[in-house]
Amino acid sequence: MTGTETIIELGVLRVLTLENETDVALHGRVIEKHFPHVSTRSRCIPNHPNGIPSAEAEVDALPYILELGTEMGAQVDALAISCALDPGVSKLDERLDVPVIGAGASVAGSALARGRNVGTLGLEDGTPSVIKDILGDYLQATETVKGAETTNYLTTPEGRAATGDAITRLIEAGCDVVAPSCTGLTTSGVLTNVQRRADIPIVDPVVAMGAMAATAARPGGQTTDQTSTRHEHP
Amino acid sequence: MTGTETIIELGVLRVLTLENETDVALHGRVIEKHFPHVSTRSRCIPNHPNGIPSAEAEVDALPYILELGTEMGAQVDALAISCALDPGVSKLDERLDVPVIGAGASVAGSALARGRNVGTLGLEDGTPSVIKDILGDYLQATETVKGAETTNYLTTPEGRAATGDAITRLIEAGCDVVAPSCTGLTTSGVLTNVQRRADIPIVDPVVAMGAMAATAARPGGQTTDQTSTRHEHP
Repeated sequence: MTGTETIIELGVLRVLTLENETDVALHGRVIEKHFPHVSTRSRCIPNHPNGIPSAEAEVDALPYILELGTEMGAQVDALAISCALDPGVSKLDERLDVPVIGAGASVAGSALARGRNVGTLGLEDGTPSVIKDILGDYLQATETVKGAETTNYLTTPEGRAATGDAITRLIEAGCDVVAPSCTGLTTSGVLTNVQRRADIPIVDPVVAMGAMAATAARPGGQTTDQTSTRHEHP
Repeated sequence: MTGTETIIELGVLRVLTLENETDVALHGRVIEKHFPHVSTRSRCIPNHPNGIPSAEAEVDALPYILELGTEMGAQVDALAISCALDPGVSKLDERLDVPVIGAGASVAGSALARGRNVGTLGLEDGTPSVIKDILGDYLQATETVKGAETTNYLTTPEGRAATGDAITRLIEAGCDVVAPSCTGLTTSGVLTNVQRRADIPIVDPVVAMGAMAATAARPGGQTTDQTSTRHEHP
């Protein structure tokens, strides 16, 4: 670390209304911990204390996401929508001058870089369509953490055990990588715990999103020196 | 940057025999520039001054890759095989205790996190099978830089123009993201130049590999604090 690196300013938009600034910033802090050259600014949409628990809620939340995302996008190098449904990502990516990255596409794409038999892990039934679409035939199995009514539950011994059991079921179903399909699993901190015990990679959706955003932002217009005249294939 | 972050030690294995240490380290330096908390150690296989220009050459190179990769893997937090064919990645990933990441799966997965109509861009005809397999129906078009006999050519005005033309053809074919299918495009430095002019994202395969490796390595066993009791879906 030379201390002279360009810092990437990353906006992190939460689709869950939280009162406490520490809570709002949690996903951003996870990204900063993994990518110390990324500086995050987190904000959450209003009026959605329960997040996006249904398709109807997504429709209702979308205008708030687009408005807040447009505002945040003017002040950052890249914008991350920290929800695996990727709500508003396509529209904001068209509208804004900076890259807009969603947790859903990020976790799916990152999982495909690690394995070809992907298991998704959610807090309720089903896998977001953006993840299903990207994985296609490589979606090997889908599991749900039983009893996870709140992310708080995930941090209890029972919740950790239930998460570990779900991952065991994915491994038994032939999965060689896990793509958690809900950023609430990051919020709970349970993924670190289960990764230590699992034999296959478990991709953190928020970290994956941070990685994609850091890649997309390309600060400082990097130029690689041309030092080789040989032809490297491919 | 607090100066207290864990540094990720990343091995970068080049499948092209280079005499000059600066040349060997070039991809590693690109990764370090984008991810300053990653420290790279680069080595190249012997006896392959022309890299892997054919399927026969890949078969011949594989034992060298496995031997060098096994040796390097014992000294790093993650190992990157800096070739879009991902030669030996699966075997090494099974064999080693650290994550093994290939440029091919990384650029394909990263492209899917950015767009759903992917154009691949190579230096000779065809797209590596690992990239084709991951992209599946999302492989919208494939282009080749005309006249690129050496990566040196890519840095000439003609080479830059030819690369820009190929990207224009991909855009005209409906692509919304470019996945360069040869790490020689990173070596040449031409991607930065063409990205400045292109309206769609061009994923650098070496940077994408670095991002995936940094995500996979997870140094220091991060733990996110549990500070939210709400249920965030999904």
